[in-house]
Amino acid sequence: MTPPRGWHHVRRAMSSTNPLVSDRFVDFLLYEVLDLAGLLALPDFAEHTPETVGIYLGTARRLARELLFPAYKPMDEAPPRLENGRVRVHRAMHDIYPRLVELGVLSATRPPDAYGQMLPLTVASLAASYLMAANLSAYGYLGLTTGAARLLESFGSDELKERFMSRLYRGEWTGTMALTEPQAGSSLSDVETRATPAEGGHYLIKGSKIFISGGDHDLTENIVHLTLARIDGAPPGIKGVSLFAIPKLRSERGGLVPNDVEVAGVIHKIGWRGLPSLALNFGEAGDCHGYLVGEPHRGISYMFQMMNEARLMIGMNGASTASVAFHESLEYAKTRPQGRSLGDKDPRTPQVPILEHADVRRMLLRQKAIAWGSIALLGLTARLSDLAEHATEETSRARAAMLLDLLTPIAKSFPAERGFESNALAVQVLGGYGYTSEYLPEAWLRDQKLNSIHEGTTGIQSLDLLGRKVIAAGGAAFGALLEEIAATCDGARDAGVHPDLVQRVEGAAMAMRQVTLHLGALGAQGDVRGMLLHSADYLDLASTMVIGWTWLRLAATAQKNQQDRPQDDDFYNGIASAAQYWIRTELPRVGYLAQLCRSGEDSYERVRPEWL
Amino acid sequence: MTPPRGWHHVRRAMSSTNPLVSDRFVDFLLYEVLDLAGLLALPDFAEHTPETVGIYLGTARRLARELLFPAYKPMDEAPPRLENGRVRVHRAMHDIYPRLVELGVLSATRPPDAYGQMLPLTVASLAASYLMAANLSAYGYLGLTTGAARLLESFGSDELKERFMSRLYRGEWTGTMALTEPQAGSSLSDVETRATPAEGGHYLIKGSKIFISGGDHDLTENIVHLTLARIDGAPPGIKGVSLFAIPKLRSERGGLVPNDVEVAGVIHKIGWRGLPSLALNFGEAGDCHGYLVGEPHRGISYMFQMMNEARLMIGMNGASTASVAFHESLEYAKTRPQGRSLGDKDPRTPQVPILEHADVRRMLLRQKAIAWGSIALLGLTARLSDLAEHATEETSRARAAMLLDLLTPIAKSFPAERGFESNALAVQVLGGYGYTSEYLPEAWLRDQKLNSIHEGTTGIQSLDLLGRKVIAAGGAAFGALLEEIAATCDGARDAGVHPDLVQRVEGAAMAMRQVTLHLGALGAQGDVRGMLLHSADYLDLASTMVIGWTWLRLAATAQKNQQDRPQDDDFYNGIASAAQYWIRTELPRVGYLAQLCRSGEDSYERVRPEWL
Repeated sequence: MTPPRGWHHVRRAMSSTNPLVSDRFVDFLLYEVLDLAGLLALPDFAEHTPETVGIYLGTARRLARELLFPAYKPMDEAPPRLENGRVRVHRAMHDIYPRLVELGVLSATRPPDAYGQMLPLTVASLAASYLMAANLSAYGYLGLTTGAARLLESFGSDELKERFMSRLYRGEWTGTMALTEPQAGSSLSDVETRATPAEGGHYLIKGSKIFISGGDHDLTENIVHLTLARIDGAPPGIKGVSLFAIPKLRSERGGLVPNDVEVAGVIHKIGWRGLPSLALNFGEAGDCHGYLVGEPHRGISYMFQMMNEARLMIGMNGASTASVAFHESLEYAKTRPQGRSLGDKDPRTPQVPILEHADVRRMLLRQKAIAWGSIALLGLTARLSDLAEHATEETSRARAAMLLDLLTPIAKSFPAERGFESNALAVQVLGGYGYTSEYLPEAWLRDQKLNSIHEGTTGIQSLDLLGRKVIAAGGAAFGALLEEIAATCDGARDAGVHPDLVQRVEGAAMAMRQVTLHLGALGAQGDVRGMLLHSADYLDLASTMVIGWTWLRLAATAQKNQQDRPQDDDFYNGIASAAQYWIRTELPRVGYLAQLCRSGEDSYERVRPEWL
Repeated sequence: MTPPRGWHHVRRAMSSTNPLVSDRFVDFLLYEVLDLAGLLALPDFAEHTPETVGIYLGTARRLARELLFPAYKPMDEAPPRLENGRVRVHRAMHDIYPRLVELGVLSATRPPDAYGQMLPLTVASLAASYLMAANLSAYGYLGLTTGAARLLESFGSDELKERFMSRLYRGEWTGTMALTEPQAGSSLSDVETRATPAEGGHYLIKGSKIFISGGDHDLTENIVHLTLARIDGAPPGIKGVSLFAIPKLRSERGGLVPNDVEVAGVIHKIGWRGLPSLALNFGEAGDCHGYLVGEPHRGISYMFQMMNEARLMIGMNGASTASVAFHESLEYAKTRPQGRSLGDKDPRTPQVPILEHADVRRMLLRQKAIAWGSIALLGLTARLSDLAEHATEETSRARAAMLLDLLTPIAKSFPAERGFESNALAVQVLGGYGYTSEYLPEAWLRDQKLNSIHEGTTGIQSLDLLGRKVIAAGGAAFGALLEEIAATCDGARDAGVHPDLVQRVEGAAMAMRQVTLHLGALGAQGDVRGMLLHSADYLDLASTMVIGWTWLRLAATAQKNQQDRPQDDDFYNGIASAAQYWIRTELPRVGYLAQLCRSGEDSYERVRPEWL
């Protein structure tokens, strides 16, 4: 049995050459767009230089390409198994985990007293994009651990920090976020897990959690679950939920003993298959000790204070997953011959690479606009996060924090939603081959789908944006965003970007402003339903606008720098092409969406269950 | 280990109640919209009555629900295996296949001399929608066999009909379409499989084919591959490709002997996992006999004459896959409590079903608009096919054929592209549960993706629509479509549909007309590249328009019939809601897309490979 020609040939030509994320683009973002030098000049980052940044970034790139990416498909194909109540993960993770700990991923942005390197998040998150693009699940173990440690760092007592946080940041143990319960899902006010005060200062925990990523594994000896539960007698709803640290094994008599945390089942996720998602039971035997983090009844507010970072991480997950698939399908399109150019009907001429077909180039340029636009937006929000925490002027910190809050639901949901479309285009570029698990794009399509669901669904992001962030402080953040867009437009005009592109961004911003004023007025009049009726369309509108603004900013920088670096002509032309594509083909949707948001169109508001 | 509460409970509540496709809606289409009585009055359908139609439809519904659907998940989980060179399919197929043959699926629309029942395609395809929704792969074996038999019926000699067609239509053997080769993909002019004339009138075949669905299995003794190959000395390109019937086993010395057709490998498809997709080698041992179908060098034109039917079948695959997922997520949304209504902040009130959240209703109504709109469009094109073949007046036949040609690329690609979006929404409605293979929507999402690839990718459909169908005969078909739309608008106005909806459809049709004239003029001036630059956007535009027209037609019929059937108020209100949704939220995209198609926007036309 001879395998058909062309099959394995094509496969070998791929993957090994996938850059995951473009180095030139990330360097462009750091050094030309996001003013890394300015960030490093802040006192808090005094320990860092372009050299130390380069070492961290270079190591992340190398680990991503040499260690994480080759393990991606094997881990997708052999997900963690439950054996005798314990989860066993793929053996590749046993090599990967310590190397990522060694790189310092867990505490890269933390100060030295939290075992960190005090690296700007701008650098850390762009470095993480390579790791995520290479192997989303592998990175996931660390992202979750950092999240758990961060909660303890911000709200835990010194004792909890000593007992748990230090081990999490050093990677000796891992952490999870145990929020979701079977009956509650996104509705955290309905958490039912109970915590009963016990002698000795701890609480006895009893309840079930579901979808706990990394909830068990054999990578480290112990796992700490940051868990939402309700202290006996607590008020109902959000204001009665507290945060607990619940280790899998607790310290007792100088050693670690089981803490009555049982794996109730492994959930068969369709993607992220290298990272187990579990149902956990706490306290089935009445012997699960939990340790209160911070004050009682403030669990939800603690979680919300960490939520921006978690959501930006999901955004970068989505952006990275779109990026790796873009590069894979681009390589395929460059090397796969099929068909001939329009007008060339002579079958004796050789076939051309499919990249020659306009519609294939459309699918690739669209992927690039989505994936790179998303990475740029996540870079931008990471920089805002750095400024919000580390700028020397209070006014700079406040403005950055405000813009960050506003942009977070967009930076979380756009890469997930459009990234899914982008990942589907990567499958489409590969045609029949893309529809097989012999090739990678279908796996990334599966991975991507989760990003519109976890850490707040897209529907929840749309309510967060319009119902909370846009109208906060009388629309102050929204006003600041309009100022930023106007400044970018001025800069682009000065840099010599085609006036048509600048005008389109200005026009779209005007349309966004008007519809926002209209909706804000509805809300101010007490018509909250009317304001939020088209929140999904408004999120789409604002996202399309923000990515258009981002691309204009990239195009302006490219235009400015191109003349000094003729050797980078291809790169800069590519930036200009993607900017043109987004602004001329997608940004016009803002006008149509603005009309829709104002229209009062009420079909799904009015439809009754029995009509559906 | 106790499974967490809520998990299995929810799962059991589903699936068994999934109707696959709405009976009331199909009856509405047949009896209220598509004038089945008028079709049955045609002389060719004289054997049929509403009763015979009801029996066929009723049996299909029952088989779909009781036999095919329960086997869907088991077949998805245990795809066919290659054992000793032979493919073994899931044992459920051994029960299903004969029952579908018995129903008469293979030849339902064929005349008695082709072993058929002469059923209108309108009926057969709506009946098939249940089978497809229940189990796409199971239906696939039969759809492929019918396709192969149809080629023989239309172009084969009496001898080939006797030898092969009769057995295919009777289901004794199955058939395949063996077009694709590893190096050629969609480019059929590059087919390289060779056919050398041999003594005895047959040809010796040598070559490799790939992605051959149903290319081997253990359901029937023999398989007939309708195969494209090139006779020695044939001219290059399209005009040198011939069609051959190549059985797996050939008749010799009164029995069947192997015909040198070998399975080279099983392709691991990500969906349609009940139907094997294979790489086949013909004539590795120099002993593969093929039998010429029709005349030499006309293989491609024969294939093209069958292509409308094949593409409409794919369209119904997509529509049905969207339908079953819509119903599954609707049932989930009705029964899954989570969160509270906007404004109800009291955590002591019970949680409401997620259907109460406006954004969930949006996702459901959007799915309904896509899935039901697609089914209606496929019903409409099936009716055109019936009229094109069986209307008594030549002018009626010609007009129907013309409209059918024009609508086919839309009816093929819209359910695939928007159906994929719709299937993703079904996953989203189920949230974290939707992201697991414990639930069905993720499987339908995988299934759906193939429909934008096989039988001509969406890119190819867009070129077919704008570069061929729209401009054919001086735009005659396009003009006829505009007339149909105008007639529907008049009818809707008379029926009392809200004037705003009618005006929107009229306005969109006007915009489509203008952009089409503009693009047609470019083509007439010889600027084919300019005409086709936005063919993908034009396909999107035309599809959005055609579905808007379809919904207006459904709404008009509903409006007309509602007063006489108060007991069906909910159904008719649901039609009106979906029509309103599509026409007011999606149809406005026509204006934006028309501008884009005329804009000359050339980013992906100009972008060079090294810029990407």
